Amino acid sequence: MMISKIGLVGLGTVGTGVAELLLANPPIFAKKLDKRIELIGIADRSINKKKDKIPFPSNLIITQDFNEIINNPDINIIVELIGGIHPAKDIVIKALEKGKDIVTANKALLALHGSELFKIAQKYGKSISFEASVGSCIPVIAALRDSFIANEIKGIYGIVNGTTNYVLTKMTQEEVTYDEALKDAQIKGYAENDPSTDVEGIDAAHKITILSRMGFNCDFNYEDVYVEGITHIELKDIYYAHELGYTLKLLAISKRRDNGLEIRVNPTLLPHDHPLSSVNGVFNAICIRGNAIGETMLYGQGAGQMPTASAIVSDLVDVSLGRAKITFQSIKPLSGNCKKINVLDISMIKTRYYLRYSVIDKPGVLASITGILGNHNISISSVIQQDSRENELVPLVMMTHVAEEGNLQRALIEINNLDVVKEKTRFLRVEEASS
Amino acid sequence: MMISKIGLVGLGTVGTGVAELLLANPPIFAKKLDKRIELIGIADRSINKKKDKIPFPSNLIITQDFNEIINNPDINIIVELIGGIHPAKDIVIKALEKGKDIVTANKALLALHGSELFKIAQKYGKSISFEASVGSCIPVIAALRDSFIANEIKGIYGIVNGTTNYVLTKMTQEEVTYDEALKDAQIKGYAENDPSTDVEGIDAAHKITILSRMGFNCDFNYEDVYVEGITHIELKDIYYAHELGYTLKLLAISKRRDNGLEIRVNPTLLPHDHPLSSVNGVFNAICIRGNAIGETMLYGQGAGQMPTASAIVSDLVDVSLGRAKITFQSIKPLSGNCKKINVLDISMIKTRYYLRYSVIDKPGVLASITGILGNHNISISSVIQQDSRENELVPLVMMTHVAEEGNLQRALIEINNLDVVKEKTRFLRVEEASS
Repeated sequence: MMISKIGLVGLGTVGTGVAELLLANPPIFAKKLDKRIELIGIADRSINKKKDKIPFPSNLIITQDFNEIINNPDINIIVELIGGIHPAKDIVIKALEKGKDIVTANKALLALHGSELFKIAQKYGKSISFEASVGSCIPVIAALRDSFIANEIKGIYGIVNGTTNYVLTKMTQEEVTYDEALKDAQIKGYAENDPSTDVEGIDAAHKITILSRMGFNCDFNYEDVYVEGITHIELKDIYYAHELGYTLKLLAISKRRDNGLEIRVNPTLLPHDHPLSSVNGVFNAICIRGNAIGETMLYGQGAGQMPTASAIVSDLVDVSLGRAKITFQSIKPLSGNCKKINVLDISMIKTRYYLRYSVIDKPGVLASITGILGNHNISISSVIQQDSRENELVPLVMMTHVAEEGNLQRALIEINNLDVVKEKTRFLRVEEASS
Repeated sequence: MMISKIGLVGLGTVGTGVAELLLANPPIFAKKLDKRIELIGIADRSINKKKDKIPFPSNLIITQDFNEIINNPDINIIVELIGGIHPAKDIVIKALEKGKDIVTANKALLALHGSELFKIAQKYGKSISFEASVGSCIPVIAALRDSFIANEIKGIYGIVNGTTNYVLTKMTQEEVTYDEALKDAQIKGYAENDPSTDVEGIDAAHKITILSRMGFNCDFNYEDVYVEGITHIELKDIYYAHELGYTLKLLAISKRRDNGLEIRVNPTLLPHDHPLSSVNGVFNAICIRGNAIGETMLYGQGAGQMPTASAIVSDLVDVSLGRAKITFQSIKPLSGNCKKINVLDISMIKTRYYLRYSVIDKPGVLASITGILGNHNISISSVIQQDSRENELVPLVMMTHVAEEGNLQRALIEINNLDVVKEKTRFLRVEEASS
């Protein structure tokens, strides 16, 4: 029995979880598997501060220098868990050049440089496994790559960022402001001190990029993904949406359209009975729609130490058994040579919208607004208009039927210029069960 | 490039779907995969009636005799889709002896003879793949086998039968009786003319048996699974449970306990906010709980022509690439040699209960009943007692705290013997999010 020998680069939260699973005596997977997987060495810049906290076996290589791990000829799989682009990209490339397979959770690296890295891996006959990069333990990469291979994938959409889902859930359930909810998330460790990558939707954009390339068997520039975070969300919009039968979630959405790929991250209203509406707190869930399978959803903890470590170890098993090599050599989305496809500009998408105007309540206001919308081919499905005294500033809330975003943008420029409209109109996109 | 050559035995609904996916020109998977998979022949008893309806290519072998397919030396993978034990079991064994790999959706066969068939496959160095046997396209076998391999699986539970979920959903949403809902399901093609395998919970028992052996890396007798269907469900129990905050579903439940395996199929009350509560109609969903992953849920169409065909084709890809062979030789739950474990008698399980008594409303009735429950260590968490005139027959509904079923059974014998109790007391088990 050949033994797989693992080198771990990056001993943060997830790395520590991976070490724990691999160093258990015996590891849980060992009971289910005829294969030995041994952790040989760990590199981490701050290893000296960490090594006393973890009971490492004496024969484990412990180093501050990742080169010592990737140059070690005994090691055949490198787990890259330092995140970010530099030096992670160099580490992955050097390790591939040294003939080592890669297991990584690095979504930024794969979103920005996936095809380049896949090509290098192919050149050296090695594999890159990355189940942990999206939804941690939720087996969404395997589902898109293997389980749903008989399908033309139509759409991939879901909640792929736990931080923002925690914040929005707290705002919704406890009626607190964005700032209060974010602060609570930071105290609980669900948000970083600098939360921008999460709250601005960047992390979700990385993830939907990875999923889309796999699901749609294509390539495109990450920079073309439309990204809108949750920093501008006001409690009252959550409230009005709720009244209209919708729940607000930050969704990553990707759909194959006749003229290209619709791919975007934005706060989205979902009907209360949509399966994603009840995905709360730090949980993630991804819906995949295919021509044979119809609608599916995969749900679980999308982040955290042990769920992510679980996904890393499942990838290690896959590499150790030789399955990852076969997969990497056979499945075209992993070739690094996929056809580039056109990403639709956000103005070209078609969906329903929630609109909230701040207007002076005067006779004729509703007529002016609906007139402008009508001129731009936008029709209204429902309106909430609160009672108020004449000439008072009031919110006016509308749901539209399906409209093209470019038309909406042009209509809103005109509407925002009306004398009776006192603040920039807020709008949110809507996702129905089968749009 | 070696070409995989497929023989299909059984051209029912699912078989026709598989043929459609394989005979498409080009098949969808061919765009994503460097591998050719060719359907060479089809055997079906009624092939002569069917062959005119499907545009088969002229070089396809079409036969009423399955032996012609399993003896064909060109064919290297047999898809068994006739279902049931005979002659499916013989077909699988003969095909393995002839050196062919097996892909099957046959849950009865695997539940009753899984270990025996796995052993035969191991003997001939061949594999049996069966993703389609549980939840059709929902990749629950792959998740338990591969994605969650780093976990000690704690529990597997879910909605694994679409027919019963359709019936219960219709009863709940439209307030119709069991008979009316079943009739509607039969008209829509969701229930068989003889629905007993579904409505009596047998199909669900087959499926939870397969999942449990995989997830818990063990073996046990299928006959030891406790099975209770939905034929006795009354609309009023759905109503009272709803008032108490619960939704009724037929669940298949399997949990690793200190003293053995708890495994059962029974109508179950779930809190409204449980993710399984909103799984409606013919959809299925399976929750898997592990020590590293925590709670996960996989959701999708659990039956139907194309979802099941999608799972069959994903297995065919897996076999064709050589990954299934590696998996079958490496993953211990597929060895056919797993340790037999003790299945707990239903009297040993511990859960919360819903109880509905039909009592004559007299002073002291509640005291008699709660007294008997108390003597058997069962305490009450809530009661619904309807206003009524004295001496009238009224329903009395209770939710208990966690109790042992044996104690409940003994208490109910005493309670049912009380003069004031006029009908056999109904009870339903409850499943909370983390029990």
